[in-house]
Amino acid sequence: MKKIKKIGVMTSGGDSPGMNAAIRSVVRTCAFYKIECAGIYRGYQGMIEGDFIDLNARSVKGIINKGGTFLKSARSKEFMTKEGRAKAYKALTDANIDALVTIGGDGTFTGALVFNKEYNFPIIGIPGTIDNDIAGTSHTLGYDTTLNTVVEVIDKIRDTASSHNRLFFIEVMGRDVGHIALNAGVGAGAEEILIPEEDLGLERLVDSLNRSKESGKSSSIVVVAEGDKTGKNVFELKDYVNEHMPEYDVRVSVLGHMQRGGSPSCFDRVLASRMGVTAVENLRDGKSNLMVGLINDKIAVTPLQKAIKGQSKINKELIRVSDIMSV
Amino acid sequence: MKKIKKIGVMTSGGDSPGMNAAIRSVVRTCAFYKIECAGIYRGYQGMIEGDFIDLNARSVKGIINKGGTFLKSARSKEFMTKEGRAKAYKALTDANIDALVTIGGDGTFTGALVFNKEYNFPIIGIPGTIDNDIAGTSHTLGYDTTLNTVVEVIDKIRDTASSHNRLFFIEVMGRDVGHIALNAGVGAGAEEILIPEEDLGLERLVDSLNRSKESGKSSSIVVVAEGDKTGKNVFELKDYVNEHMPEYDVRVSVLGHMQRGGSPSCFDRVLASRMGVTAVENLRDGKSNLMVGLINDKIAVTPLQKAIKGQSKINKELIRVSDIMSV
Amino acid sequence: MKKIKKIGVMTSGGDSPGMNAAIRSVVRTCAFYKIECAGIYRGYQGMIEGDFIDLNARSVKGIINKGGTFLKSARSKEFMTKEGRAKAYKALTDANIDALVTIGGDGTFTGALVFNKEYNFPIIGIPGTIDNDIAGTSHTLGYDTTLNTVVEVIDKIRDTASSHNRLFFIEVMGRDVGHIALNAGVGAGAEEILIPEEDLGLERLVDSLNRSKESGKSSSIVVVAEGDKTGKNVFELKDYVNEHMPEYDVRVSVLGHMQRGGSPSCFDRVLASRMGVTAVENLRDGKSNLMVGLINDKIAVTPLQKAIKGQSKINKELIRVSDIMSV
Amino acid sequence: MKKIKKIGVMTSGGDSPGMNAAIRSVVRTCAFYKIECAGIYRGYQGMIEGDFIDLNARSVKGIINKGGTFLKSARSKEFMTKEGRAKAYKALTDANIDALVTIGGDGTFTGALVFNKEYNFPIIGIPGTIDNDIAGTSHTLGYDTTLNTVVEVIDKIRDTASSHNRLFFIEVMGRDVGHIALNAGVGAGAEEILIPEEDLGLERLVDSLNRSKESGKSSSIVVVAEGDKTGKNVFELKDYVNEHMPEYDVRVSVLGHMQRGGSPSCFDRVLASRMGVTAVENLRDGKSNLMVGLINDKIAVTPLQKAIKGQSKINKELIRVSDIMSV
Repeated sequence: MKKIKKIGVMTSGGDSPGMNAAIRSVVRTCAFYKIECAGIYRGYQGMIEGDFIDLNARSVKGIINKGGTFLKSARSKEFMTKEGRAKAYKALTDANIDALVTIGGDGTFTGALVFNKEYNFPIIGIPGTIDNDIAGTSHTLGYDTTLNTVVEVIDKIRDTASSHNRLFFIEVMGRDVGHIALNAGVGAGAEEILIPEEDLGLERLVDSLNRSKESGKSSSIVVVAEGDKTGKNVFELKDYVNEHMPEYDVRVSVLGHMQRGGSPSCFDRVLASRMGVTAVENLRDGKSNLMVGLINDKIAVTPLQKAIKGQSKINKELIRVSDIMSV
Repeated sequence: MKKIKKIGVMTSGGDSPGMNAAIRSVVRTCAFYKIECAGIYRGYQGMIEGDFIDLNARSVKGIINKGGTFLKSARSKEFMTKEGRAKAYKALTDANIDALVTIGGDGTFTGALVFNKEYNFPIIGIPGTIDNDIAGTSHTLGYDTTLNTVVEVIDKIRDTASSHNRLFFIEVMGRDVGHIALNAGVGAGAEEILIPEEDLGLERLVDSLNRSKESGKSSSIVVVAEGDKTGKNVFELKDYVNEHMPEYDVRVSVLGHMQRGGSPSCFDRVLASRMGVTAVENLRDGKSNLMVGLINDKIAVTPLQKAIKGQSKINKELIRVSDIMSV
Repeated sequence: MKKIKKIGVMTSGGDSPGMNAAIRSVVRTCAFYKIECAGIYRGYQGMIEGDFIDLNARSVKGIINKGGTFLKSARSKEFMTKEGRAKAYKALTDANIDALVTIGGDGTFTGALVFNKEYNFPIIGIPGTIDNDIAGTSHTLGYDTTLNTVVEVIDKIRDTASSHNRLFFIEVMGRDVGHIALNAGVGAGAEEILIPEEDLGLERLVDSLNRSKESGKSSSIVVVAEGDKTGKNVFELKDYVNEHMPEYDVRVSVLGHMQRGGSPSCFDRVLASRMGVTAVENLRDGKSNLMVGLINDKIAVTPLQKAIKGQSKINKELIRVSDIMSV
Repeated sequence: MKKIKKIGVMTSGGDSPGMNAAIRSVVRTCAFYKIECAGIYRGYQGMIEGDFIDLNARSVKGIINKGGTFLKSARSKEFMTKEGRAKAYKALTDANIDALVTIGGDGTFTGALVFNKEYNFPIIGIPGTIDNDIAGTSHTLGYDTTLNTVVEVIDKIRDTASSHNRLFFIEVMGRDVGHIALNAGVGAGAEEILIPEEDLGLERLVDSLNRSKESGKSSSIVVVAEGDKTGKNVFELKDYVNEHMPEYDVRVSVLGHMQRGGSPSCFDRVLASRMGVTAVENLRDGKSNLMVGLINDKIAVTPLQKAIKGQSKINKELIRVSDIMSV
């Protein structure tokens, strides 16, 4: 087993709160084990361009609580080509980097696997994405923070909704999975939650809103994942309800990119710190092609292969909880 | 001068943070002076319907820090008719309410003036609107809170914008006035600010963004008031910039109704408390048709007539400050 | 099996964020199953005094996001006596309450067990306490919120600490267990963490702070649990360090009761909603003397007996993570 | 008039939120006018030691929303000596710095005046202190942010106070002036407010708390400035009330240094931006010995001499408002 002397750390794909905390953890764990550490800017694109920076324990002070990623993130088409990856390999070896910690999502890990296969380059992944759509971990980095951001914003919208007896359709992130919608919906006390995994049906939605009204509710919040299974976006849902419930004053809010930002929650900071330690220690132990995850509250590793192919499942219990809470 | 025995308090028009604190202040000041107090639900519509509730000092505990308005707000077409106002007058006199504190914006005060003219009913207004578009006060209730909400959200968007080197167009409230855009834009460190009062011109915008890029800025935030003078909304602006600066990754965020909600800032809570005291004391002193405002940090009253007709002006100094900050 | 017709819900012991959300869940689940529900004010004391309120689905609107407990909490000496419990039993039966959901901590559950033994009264417990010191659940209600509150406050203190190159001792809650100190300490990037479970030793503390200083750190944060094993409180620690490191500008901050308040995090709101459903469903199924908990991310029940006797253990992995992060 | 070619900017005394935003504004205004700019670390001490850093427009990106001061602050005994100031003058001239913007409080400005007198060195001051105790400006930098921090924390304490029917004495900053206590007290809905400027008297306090209790209030918050005129600190007040109102469950919370930190409010960021522009423009115009302030919502300058000697007065209207609100 070749001894790891210098680890590169990078963030890739959509940014998420906690990425900076994870970088900090990787850097400090390297320092702890006297391994050199380099930051790679802008994900695989920066890797190709050799856009590196040496990082020591002090380089990462004051970032544990900062949103985004100071190493920046980007998508790289060039890395999808053999030539691009060859350049990346050359840049890494030129800089004496002999192992990687890559923080990102599904696409990031796919790239990592291909690169490892071609160059046998040791790589450990950390799941950083707000969507929580990675198998092999109960929580991706940033997901908990995003849930708090979303419920805080919906709390504000609720203030005005209930002052005016309005119905709001609120779009939250989640093209393929309904984790954010389902959890933030329950957390914000939404009357209905529309997700990609289940088709509530538009008629049932109108029935449910009618029942809400009859039961004495004067305002309602419907949380809608981007990719909800009705196939209608929030504006189309508004039109549909306007048509079928003309007495309702319906409004729409698309939360958008603010969901990605913000200072990470304590949970995400601690998770990032734990994951960074485990990532470096696995590289040090000669491991590769693993993703560090959280399973049953314990740090555990999963083959990257599985982290990619699988998909985390929503907690169906929450659909039932939501139905009961909307009584 | 007839002694005031019972004051009605209501909120009308768009809700704003601090309305609950103002209601609390009106209620407690009434209690202090042994004047009875009734809450009127849903603005002028609730007044017509006699939808009142007796309020005492304890009724309003625990609301100083709550967004929205527990008396709810609504727009009333019926109150725009002579018949509607006759019903409202009857409902008030049936309930022995002999004076009004009305919390709202321009439309609210117009209604108040008409009603006063017809029935000689004593009314004092408190400016509650996030837009800060009322003459006779440097700050409307809720405006300061909204500014904080907007900069906090833009801070979050900045996290992701700078992680990805993106340009964001962010739409904030303000159809007719640019107060929110201008102040929150400077507060959030926006590179450009588009407001209804000044036409920056699209070419100058592109020039400015190009200069930003050349000067080394990797991401940019442009804050746009709903009614900005270019006549383009944020989506059209995105298209325009996409066309003229194809290298830029442009995104859009419409902040929407969350801007109305949230726990009021200390400033708004204190302002609401001061305004409520002065409103009740003016009614008690036999005054009417006045709006309580803040002028040069001091509570002052202005004839409702002027509060309506005038319009608060933006601080042009801030345009200059913004230009310098974007150097 | 006697059919449950009316459930009483109460909060007892120190309040924690999420108690209101749990009450809401209990009330709505009762409504869903057509079971009547009564709120019991001020814990066991209100139970003795028959201080009850009928609650329906609408009674609990708008409280999911409120800190504290609207049913209030109290400690009751009278309930520790046979006579007190007899009064409580009479009050419950007079009000036709035939089962209880009790939300609180260790002391609350002890009382519940005694009461159940004497009167065979069905009781299900929900663990509501910020300290996370209950066996049978990985998370007590309110714990996650408190961690976020603590890291946000320490972030603020860090701003001023690093502006002045100061050392801060920050006392957080935790007389017997170090969960808050350990997790919030890691989350806030504390240089050292003192907890009841491990004796770091004062000499090692000074050594560690000296190393921090030598490694280039200009400011330091030491998070201290109330019951830390050194036996010294934050003021004594300050004196000790002042004596042994006179060059350091040492300050103290005791976070105190603010740690109990605040709007619950999404996690705590969802947990509360899930726990309330399970509590009512268990009573409905004829179960008693169980505590609803979260085990491996799934809702599970534990005999109240075990919930009391055991004690949750700190995650020792975090001590190691903290050491590495302080490199 | 000598043309200014290079301006030094520094922060001194206790840090306050908005200092970073003010530094950013000074730096960017210099860039706008093609004046060089140097940051001076650790206030007058760093000036003596020549601890400078060249700053350009890009150096200060991403700091407008950060608490504290990245230039750090310190108190310097050496600068109080003639020799110290001579070293400082030499360091400045060695670095070609020919004017200063100094951000701080009363002590900072005193030092500036002495230095200017000895070396005729152009200096403009910006009032940065959370206490708002500087004459010549209605608002010092950081004051508005601190008020929001304090009311948010008291809101949290209120959650637990009202859950347990407790009385809290909460100590906030303010040794000599009661601005924070008075405004945050009114904003947080405190039942009583104790400040350095007025002696409420302990008997009146107990009377007032008794009246509160009789009027149906179950919990109470008393906000106490550090230097309140009763001469008793919060712990002594607790003892006094415990003795005279034994039925009350009294608790104490000392907010401490967290009041200094946190991301500045929109108000403070805008104020900082405006002040920085005016400071540089005044130096550029050949002015010196002025403090930039806010008077009647407009930026205005005051001779440093007056900024020091005077002291801002509390708004006595607020004492009356507080009394009425506590009815």
